Amino acid sequence: MDVKAAVAFEPGKPLSIETVQLEGPKAGEVLVEIKATGVCHTDAYTLSGDDPEGLFPSILGHEGAGVVVELGPEVRTLSVGDHVIPLYIPECRSCEYCLSGKTNLCQAIRGTQGRGLMPDGTSRFSYGNEMLHHYMGTSTFANYVVVPEIALAKIRKDAPFEKVCLIGCGVTTGIGAVINTAKVEPGANVVVFGLGGIGLNVIQAARLVGANRIVGVDLNPEKRPLAEQLGMTDFVNPQEVAGDLVPYLVELTQGGADYSFECIGNVEVMRQALECCHKGWGESIIIGVAGAGQEIRTRPFQLVTGRVWKGSAFGGAKGRTDVPKLVDWYMNGKIEIDPLVTHSFPLNEINQAFDLMHRGESIRSVVTFE
Amino acid sequence: MDVKAAVAFEPGKPLSIETVQLEGPKAGEVLVEIKATGVCHTDAYTLSGDDPEGLFPSILGHEGAGVVVELGPEVRTLSVGDHVIPLYIPECRSCEYCLSGKTNLCQAIRGTQGRGLMPDGTSRFSYGNEMLHHYMGTSTFANYVVVPEIALAKIRKDAPFEKVCLIGCGVTTGIGAVINTAKVEPGANVVVFGLGGIGLNVIQAARLVGANRIVGVDLNPEKRPLAEQLGMTDFVNPQEVAGDLVPYLVELTQGGADYSFECIGNVEVMRQALECCHKGWGESIIIGVAGAGQEIRTRPFQLVTGRVWKGSAFGGAKGRTDVPKLVDWYMNGKIEIDPLVTHSFPLNEINQAFDLMHRGESIRSVVTFE
Repeated sequence: MDVKAAVAFEPGKPLSIETVQLEGPKAGEVLVEIKATGVCHTDAYTLSGDDPEGLFPSILGHEGAGVVVELGPEVRTLSVGDHVIPLYIPECRSCEYCLSGKTNLCQAIRGTQGRGLMPDGTSRFSYGNEMLHHYMGTSTFANYVVVPEIALAKIRKDAPFEKVCLIGCGVTTGIGAVINTAKVEPGANVVVFGLGGIGLNVIQAARLVGANRIVGVDLNPEKRPLAEQLGMTDFVNPQEVAGDLVPYLVELTQGGADYSFECIGNVEVMRQALECCHKGWGESIIIGVAGAGQEIRTRPFQLVTGRVWKGSAFGGAKGRTDVPKLVDWYMNGKIEIDPLVTHSFPLNEINQAFDLMHRGESIRSVVTFE
Repeated sequence: MDVKAAVAFEPGKPLSIETVQLEGPKAGEVLVEIKATGVCHTDAYTLSGDDPEGLFPSILGHEGAGVVVELGPEVRTLSVGDHVIPLYIPECRSCEYCLSGKTNLCQAIRGTQGRGLMPDGTSRFSYGNEMLHHYMGTSTFANYVVVPEIALAKIRKDAPFEKVCLIGCGVTTGIGAVINTAKVEPGANVVVFGLGGIGLNVIQAARLVGANRIVGVDLNPEKRPLAEQLGMTDFVNPQEVAGDLVPYLVELTQGGADYSFECIGNVEVMRQALECCHKGWGESIIIGVAGAGQEIRTRPFQLVTGRVWKGSAFGGAKGRTDVPKLVDWYMNGKIEIDPLVTHSFPLNEINQAFDLMHRGESIRSVVTFE
């Protein structure tokens, strides 16, 4: 079938709006009409060419929501008409990882997904004679996609696509890091580095679980009002701190952060995030994606005196299980998404969303297909 | 009173056996006759002069056991004749750290202890007109010491001093890292780097909690028999591994260690210990003390994909609470100490214990005072 998509033909070039071809779903696969998709820094990172695992040509996008249109053979858990959010980390519920009870990193289709292919080792997308790669198993920058059944979370039908699409990445990543990875408890002091789409969700989750001090750190003072609206109690602009940032934060939190979150992808900030943690028990969670080959470092004394260094991917959330719950939380007013969607574009104007993001002027832009 | 002690007058020089003067206990302090003490790498590290916080002249030693001889004013929890193990991490049971339920790093006397002094800011030791520093609050290389009440664990009277003194450091550090810090569960695969006094205790604790594979890594094949006796299931000599050690260990443990322990103090090994952990959930515990200023490093991807980097000091054990239990475990045959004591010397020959340790020929030498 013909599909309208924003194609990444080459690294470093704008996306190109094209009509491409999509094969129907094979065994265990589902055809989904994408209704809305967020534009995330990870898409921009891959498009830039800096991602050593980036593949071209490809159809990017990993933060979408849509409707099931057609089922391939052997699909049992979904029906035509179901509303779904595609998952870049699937949940097969049968691999060693899913069954461990310790991680959300389902490995069922890791190999082919990393090579931009469906589980059978082929792509459903083509452009003329040229194969186009899938991206993160989701490729939500197309109005129709084929996705494995295990990579689709079924959600309630009254949820607005153009809002809950953010649960496909940013919302779950931030909220899950607080709830699943760090397990922040009431009364804890939290420090959040980077007040973008992820950091703001860390903040609202910290508020949700009853954190005490919720300190936001960002170089851009324009991030402050929205962060305060979502629960930030203290704003720190490192450029306005006389002396070192780490002792300043330790003093502000009366001994250090019980939990800190790095939501930028800067290895120097990751070190600060660890070292501002409270001696004896502070845990630092790395969420941001660092550039290729970059390394974190610290003195081991930081760990021997009780700090813990962790990371979080997709907020430690098991997508098919946890994403529908977050949709409920949004619909019930427990979490906010509306203020995070600062801009909206039709697919034709998707490159404007990237421009806004690079200029730091948007939290999230959402692209719609109709 | 006159006391016989091994004095560290200068870094890099052998200890000097001297008669020194000891003042009696002040408020909250206790006079203890030391009956036996182990000689640990940390004593050697400080004596070498490489420890930037090392103080001279001082009386080293931190792995002892003895008998209460005299109580200072206000001491309520001990009696003359009690058998005790001095604690280099005290347990005041009233500071923020003790009450947190999250750490054993009691801070009640941290400041003065780090400066080689009793809590009132003075030393009880002197040599002629010269003040001698306490060391780690314990100074067990003297046959009498004054120790704060909160830094003494009361133990049963039928336990042999020349064995249970090791519970003052090495035994508790290794066993506690497994039980308190990592909380290793039955069936877990464990990798232990360094088969000295700490690593061997990690191994016996891993066996105690029902670990599956217990892999020991050491350059010295002579460490193998005792490690096997204590529960090691696989021995790996990195010099005999063709190619990189990390993928070898990942394959040996069928996906990586559920828990790894660094018991050496080598920052490169700390990296290997982290990176050999299982994707999704493997936890690496740093126990070894690295040289001054040295840093650990890795790619943050290691953490984002689920590995956790932690440290452990004194095995996360709360000394007054946990040390008596470990003494019981030894007396009941649940843990072994006898094979770890490979050599024994009177105080006069303590420098031989350091020589043996430097040559890698001992696990632990114990010094006795009578």
